[in-house]
Amino acid sequence: MTKKALILIADGTEEMEFTITYDTLVRAGVECTSANVQSGGSPYGSVGTSPALVVCSRSIKILPDTNLQPLEAGPDKYDVLIIPGGLKGAETLSQSTEVQTLVRQYYEGNKIVAMICTLAAKTAGLPRQQVTSHPVIQNDLTTAYDYKEDSVVVSDNVPGKGILVTSRGPGTAFPFAFKLVELLCGKAKSDELRGPMMFPPSVPYPC
Amino acid sequence: MTKKALILIADGTEEMEFTITYDTLVRAGVECTSANVQSGGSPYGSVGTSPALVVCSRSIKILPDTNLQPLEAGPDKYDVLIIPGGLKGAETLSQSTEVQTLVRQYYEGNKIVAMICTLAAKTAGLPRQQVTSHPVIQNDLTTAYDYKEDSVVVSDNVPGKGILVTSRGPGTAFPFAFKLVELLCGKAKSDELRGPMMFPPSVPYPC
Repeated sequence: MTKKALILIADGTEEMEFTITYDTLVRAGVECTSANVQSGGSPYGSVGTSPALVVCSRSIKILPDTNLQPLEAGPDKYDVLIIPGGLKGAETLSQSTEVQTLVRQYYEGNKIVAMICTLAAKTAGLPRQQVTSHPVIQNDLTTAYDYKEDSVVVSDNVPGKGILVTSRGPGTAFPFAFKLVELLCGKAKSDELRGPMMFPPSVPYPC
Repeated sequence: MTKKALILIADGTEEMEFTITYDTLVRAGVECTSANVQSGGSPYGSVGTSPALVVCSRSIKILPDTNLQPLEAGPDKYDVLIIPGGLKGAETLSQSTEVQTLVRQYYEGNKIVAMICTLAAKTAGLPRQQVTSHPVIQNDLTTAYDYKEDSVVVSDNVPGKGILVTSRGPGTAFPFAFKLVELLCGKAKSDELRGPMMFPPSVPYPC
């Protein structure tokens, strides 16, 4: 069955982190939907109007596939919820009560929550477990979580709960995306993707 | 003085190659302008209207900064002309007579022409020199050029002519972008960028 990913985006999202994850998942056959999260939120359950253009962290303008409609965005609809980083985008996404609710729903619903914006794990109140993040927010996470400096951290140690995948920045976006492909579609699919993407022979993805 | 880059984009452009290059150059302080090249071209010297949305190779929709206006796009206006790959996008860009003219102008004007879509070097009639490309078009290039399998190839061996930089795919887009930063802004700037981007310690960029 086709796997489905919901990828959140907001003004200030890091466009490489968003694009590398979305594109790599599409290459793996995952059906990706990007959803615009407006600063300040939208009425819960609002019927979507046309999504607005997002201005990313380095000024690339992306038109998301849809606006975030929380009632259509739950773990019954998608296999993974993905939250890219980018300073201003991460702030909007981690402060959104709608996003916080979704993070809890995916985690409680035994699905995958994947974020380069690790602040959203904390604002959603996910319990203590292993995480990583961009070092600029490390101090906000070390009390509540077991902080690691690995490029991608997969936390899956609570039976019946979801998998939390965290990562560090644009430079870890490829290994982050490959890890998601592996979790959703298996290691063989992840390995198969890498050849045509032409990584230098010296780059040991996944790493 | 601020360096300026013109980055072409068309329907079917590989969004990771476009985004990684644009974003990395912006991080280096390079002023980037993305220009939409419509399949079939636009009247030479036409005055730009609002740029149309581009649908990239894996369905990410990007709004370019402007439409390509050839009279405003020459080597007197920018330091580097960049042409990303992506099968359908590469076809549109390499077949555009406006793009072919620009490639020749930058090369003859002693500026940098950088492409992951190496077909554009051939369709523009650039002379024999070292190039690389995605392997799917290798056979189209081996007669006219000295084909290399390096991740990034910098060809700068004709005095008075420009520098041709070619690369292979999304997996080589980071080293491609860092090489452009090095050529435009120096090695120190390229080195400085890498830290905050959080590449895994095992990834030896530039490589």
